[in-house]
Amino acid sequence: MSSVINISEKFNLFSDQWSPKKVAELNGQQILLAKIQGEFVFHKHNNEDELFMVMKGELQLELEDKIITVNEGEFYIVSKGVLHKPIAKEEVHLLLFEPLSTKHTGDVLADITVDEYEWI
Amino acid sequence: MSSVINISEKFNLFSDQWSPKKVAELNGQQILLAKIQGEFVFHKHNNEDELFMVMKGELQLELEDKIITVNEGEFYIVSKGVLHKPIAKEEVHLLLFEPLSTKHTGDVLADITVDEYEWI
Repeated sequence: MSSVINISEKFNLFSDQWSPKKVAELNGQQILLAKIQGEFVFHKHNNEDELFMVMKGELQLELEDKIITVNEGEFYIVSKGVLHKPIAKEEVHLLLFEPLSTKHTGDVLADITVDEYEWI
Repeated sequence: MSSVINISEKFNLFSDQWSPKKVAELNGQQILLAKIQGEFVFHKHNNEDELFMVMKGELQLELEDKIITVNEGEFYIVSKGVLHKPIAKEEVHLLLFEPLSTKHTGDVLADITVDEYEWI
């Protein structure tokens, strides 16, 4: 049964960083919320485009040849196969949109890799 | 080439209502922005779930047995096959997420049906 999702209220339900939470699925895609701070690992998704929508803060996405800045109210799509590393100097709140099959660390298996996203 | 999308700036680029504009595609899905006011037609999408994220205003979604209210900062997913009619007493700004194949009037062909979404 579908229900109205209040994005701010969902962010209030967790505080752990680098651990995306699932809030919705549709059409084989999922919507995740994540809090991040610091630097992630460089990785890519060979088969999935990944959308980063910034709900709070300033996200930097380091690519192979440049750094993209994404501010609150903006989004950026990292195309499949593109190496990227999210960086957040202060805590950033992200809404991610991607296929159900996507792992957040992509082709890299890191200590922080989450196998299955927790629903909130 | 992917670029940063500022959602507010995109909304400033158009004023026509009931005419969704495309701002992104990924994984066979599209992201549309729409301004709506008044009542739409009752319709359903037989094969596609449709996400309504309210960026401004208050959206009402009339379903067969109830009316759902979706406020700014909230989203609601209308599952495939579910009859729905969007209603906006004041102008509402929507971000829609749905498969590329989705028509905004679903199985109903109305005067307002747009065959191909304009990119902005």
